[in-house]
Amino acid sequence: MDIFDLSIDAHQKLGGKLEIRSKIPINSRDDLSIAYTPGVAGPCLEIAKNPERVFDLTIKKNTVAIVSDGSAVLGLGNIGPEAAIPVMEGKAILLKEYADIDAFPICLTTQNTHEIIETVRRIAPVFGGINLEDISAPRCFQIERELQDLGIPVFHDDQHGTAITLLGALINASKLVGKPLNDMKVVINGAGAAGTAIAEILLGIGHDSGHDYCVKEILVCDTKGIISTKTVSIEDNPEKFKLAALTNTNHVTGNLTDAMDGADVFIGVSVANVVTQDMIRKMGPKPIIFALANPIPEIMPDKAKAAGAYIVGTGRSDFNNQVNNVLIFPGIFRGAIDARAKRITPRMKLEAAYALAACVETPTVDYILPSVLDKTVAYRVAKAVELVARK
Amino acid sequence: MDIFDLSIDAHQKLGGKLEIRSKIPINSRDDLSIAYTPGVAGPCLEIAKNPERVFDLTIKKNTVAIVSDGSAVLGLGNIGPEAAIPVMEGKAILLKEYADIDAFPICLTTQNTHEIIETVRRIAPVFGGINLEDISAPRCFQIERELQDLGIPVFHDDQHGTAITLLGALINASKLVGKPLNDMKVVINGAGAAGTAIAEILLGIGHDSGHDYCVKEILVCDTKGIISTKTVSIEDNPEKFKLAALTNTNHVTGNLTDAMDGADVFIGVSVANVVTQDMIRKMGPKPIIFALANPIPEIMPDKAKAAGAYIVGTGRSDFNNQVNNVLIFPGIFRGAIDARAKRITPRMKLEAAYALAACVETPTVDYILPSVLDKTVAYRVAKAVELVARK
Repeated sequence: MDIFDLSIDAHQKLGGKLEIRSKIPINSRDDLSIAYTPGVAGPCLEIAKNPERVFDLTIKKNTVAIVSDGSAVLGLGNIGPEAAIPVMEGKAILLKEYADIDAFPICLTTQNTHEIIETVRRIAPVFGGINLEDISAPRCFQIERELQDLGIPVFHDDQHGTAITLLGALINASKLVGKPLNDMKVVINGAGAAGTAIAEILLGIGHDSGHDYCVKEILVCDTKGIISTKTVSIEDNPEKFKLAALTNTNHVTGNLTDAMDGADVFIGVSVANVVTQDMIRKMGPKPIIFALANPIPEIMPDKAKAAGAYIVGTGRSDFNNQVNNVLIFPGIFRGAIDARAKRITPRMKLEAAYALAACVETPTVDYILPSVLDKTVAYRVAKAVELVARK
Repeated sequence: MDIFDLSIDAHQKLGGKLEIRSKIPINSRDDLSIAYTPGVAGPCLEIAKNPERVFDLTIKKNTVAIVSDGSAVLGLGNIGPEAAIPVMEGKAILLKEYADIDAFPICLTTQNTHEIIETVRRIAPVFGGINLEDISAPRCFQIERELQDLGIPVFHDDQHGTAITLLGALINASKLVGKPLNDMKVVINGAGAAGTAIAEILLGIGHDSGHDYCVKEILVCDTKGIISTKTVSIEDNPEKFKLAALTNTNHVTGNLTDAMDGADVFIGVSVANVVTQDMIRKMGPKPIIFALANPIPEIMPDKAKAAGAYIVGTGRSDFNNQVNNVLIFPGIFRGAIDARAKRITPRMKLEAAYALAACVETPTVDYILPSVLDKTVAYRVAKAVELVARK
């Protein structure tokens, strides 16, 4: 049996990966009176009088919704809300296992931007945070943006989880190659959710005066080549247009090969095998390659190394330097919830990246990020996020 | 400290009564590969290919939403979605403790009928059943009705849980007083969700040729007295008009006292202290009183007994004959889910009432229903419901 059949078997045996348990046993009339009627009227009226107490007296204190419309699930694409459930359950168990957060999957039958926003607003009372998941670009940008006034953290992990993890990795990689990020030329292949968020965090968008690891030169490519405000239509894709305006200020044109010529860092959030050894050979000294396409990266690590790549990271667990959101999203939510933050700010994201980078005391080319199995990472990230959120 | 303060304390200590746990530990890369990427693509694609498998491979198999808009919470009224959460969590733990169902509270920021229906449709994929809860009449009727095509059981517990439990109690009471239900005159005080559902189940609505315990004479009172098609406006309240048409075919007029004159059964789903001893004295022989208003019944059991009541039931746990939905809703959902029923039919409701009545082998005037702490009841109800659902 391959891994997929093994997983089907395991899922069938479990009948879903989550269980909802009572924290309080019901064995006597007293138990019933405290947990249910008539005693429960006490906490109800208390919340009615003082709405903030919903954060103390109910599961809102520690519960996050994993919201997806099933439009961009893993590498599988638009498979719909039912087929997306196993992934959302998986996300929920990671939040539990890594950060002791109770997370519940909400898979929606609509892929309409306005309806998704409206639905999240309607079901928000019971949740202390919203993790948007596997919602395709460009809808994911608007959905996340419009929900920022909800009063609880709303975080699109495919964007920021990836971007923050990547920045953490790049901070350590930068030390190893001896080039500060400010001097690096970065190429991002993929102008969707992850590519956009990576560009924004590297550019320091949202920070009044940038940050210590800002990159000045970024080119973003999509399937047609380097994006620029001269080639992207503002009407058809305002988000991509904005991204082009933020990155390609000199209106450089060309394909991915052209973009990578002389670059220091390649970040792939695209598809399998689009990077050749020749492209890497034309990069600057000690090139850094993040080939994050899953399950098959933009170039395999051995091939990249053979062509001169100094550091290679992928999304896969069977190679060194696994860039995986699980290093970030549990800690981000834990910290934000503990601080009762109303949103995840750019500063909180940055501190999360710093904390992640700091988890590796002595980075080496094969060890720029901690293991995804290291459960102390989430707590270190959470502490950093909580600290800055409380400020 | 009173029971309300004790409950506030307990809720604060727990920080919510529910916990969401992973059924599968994540300690190795293999665990991650099976529960999450890359293996999880297996169950995802399997469901995409064969949508029915969502019932095997995900939490849909055993998960029910407790949906409320906070408009009619306990006896507290319209306290809103946040303040309603402790009750919905309570309901969820009862489903877990009594029927091993994973239940999750969904409290909505809208009280608009159409929006509630729409929202339940949008979030349905992950749920195997919907328990509507504490939604005020008459909106609750339309919401439940319109959601019957959802493909999973949708059940408004305040209506049917109460009605089924009541019928179970009445079947046993009827044996003790030696009068068949077909010959009884029944008065229902309260024309809301519970009153309507009680009238409908007693009349045998939804059954082609009634059922063995159909009541022929029912009068329903609201705060203005006996309802009739001559006094209720079809435009203002079509649901109540329908109820009047189903019950008061002779257009009887009068107040509650008039209605109870000569009646065999009084069923109160209304407010405290509206029944007097004089009213009971004018009822037929061996009167049966169900005074279900909470926490203070329509008449206290000792007063009712002193006036000649033969059997008295209330909603309270400190008196005999507690009529409580918890005797029904866990078993109803367990049975419906196990049979993978697409809805809860009138026949399933009836079989649930029969099974409940049968849980008491030898009824006495002080023991017409099993204890709410008897967890075998849910499984007996479930078996009966499952059996008829599979037919």
